[in-house]
Amino acid sequence: MDNRVLSQKTCPVARGLACVGDAWSMLILRDAGRGLTRFDQFRRNLGIAPNILARRLAALTEVGLLETRRYSDHPPRADYVLTEAGRDFLPVLALIGAWGRKHNGRGHVNRLIDAETGAEVRPIAIDAATGIPIGTRPLRMAAAEAPNS
Amino acid sequence: MDNRVLSQKTCPVARGLACVGDAWSMLILRDAGRGLTRFDQFRRNLGIAPNILARRLAALTEVGLLETRRYSDHPPRADYVLTEAGRDFLPVLALIGAWGRKHNGRGHVNRLIDAETGAEVRPIAIDAATGIPIGTRPLRMAAAEAPNS
Repeated sequence: MDNRVLSQKTCPVARGLACVGDAWSMLILRDAGRGLTRFDQFRRNLGIAPNILARRLAALTEVGLLETRRYSDHPPRADYVLTEAGRDFLPVLALIGAWGRKHNGRGHVNRLIDAETGAEVRPIAIDAATGIPIGTRPLRMAAAEAPNS
Repeated sequence: MDNRVLSQKTCPVARGLACVGDAWSMLILRDAGRGLTRFDQFRRNLGIAPNILARRLAALTEVGLLETRRYSDHPPRADYVLTEAGRDFLPVLALIGAWGRKHNGRGHVNRLIDAETGAEVRPIAIDAATGIPIGTRPLRMAAAEAPNS
């Protein structure tokens, strides 16, 4: 899957997947959303090979979902922090989690809770324009009239 | 990324990605959601190599997101149709599309519209329990008290 090809498509789903289209990248964003920032933290938590992690961190930084903040010059070390675009992706992960819990949830599966109230959170997708849940009405794609700016 | 390992995790995001953790699988589900059912339709629309497509269709069928309906015995041919779990994944794709349009939307990008009203659909994730958009309140994962059934 060539991400440059996906980024040329008119389909917005392909445009999204061009930036975050594999499980490692999504799990790195998940961990960044939980406050992990350092290479070794991601490596330990994910059990990921260092060369693969380095490639994914570089790619996520390149497409603007993570940004680096240098905390040591000798040796060169940086924190990886979510950008606004990266934080904007976290609701997608919440929805994938709700789906995973429902459809691949045998045995122990963690629950997503509101950190302040302790209440369980049940992520669903709705149309912000109408409040109607996505999936309950027929949808289709339409060509844009004019290019995005 | 070993999907059997992901399916053992307690994190629901990992559980979801164990079933649908790559761009090809998500694009196949997208196309199935638009009514494509046949091997050659997916192959042409995605520009995907036949061996990769065959593997992805088999995997999506194995995990229960697609089901096959035989329409010819000689030669053996089947339609691939979304299951309930597969249809349940389509809102995730709608949200990825909204993200892609916003953050990787240069040039022409299609819009998602309501097929009956023609109005543009703006997918967002909310907590169904409170109606509050995901991402506006601090969240955390908590261990389940008891195994899912």
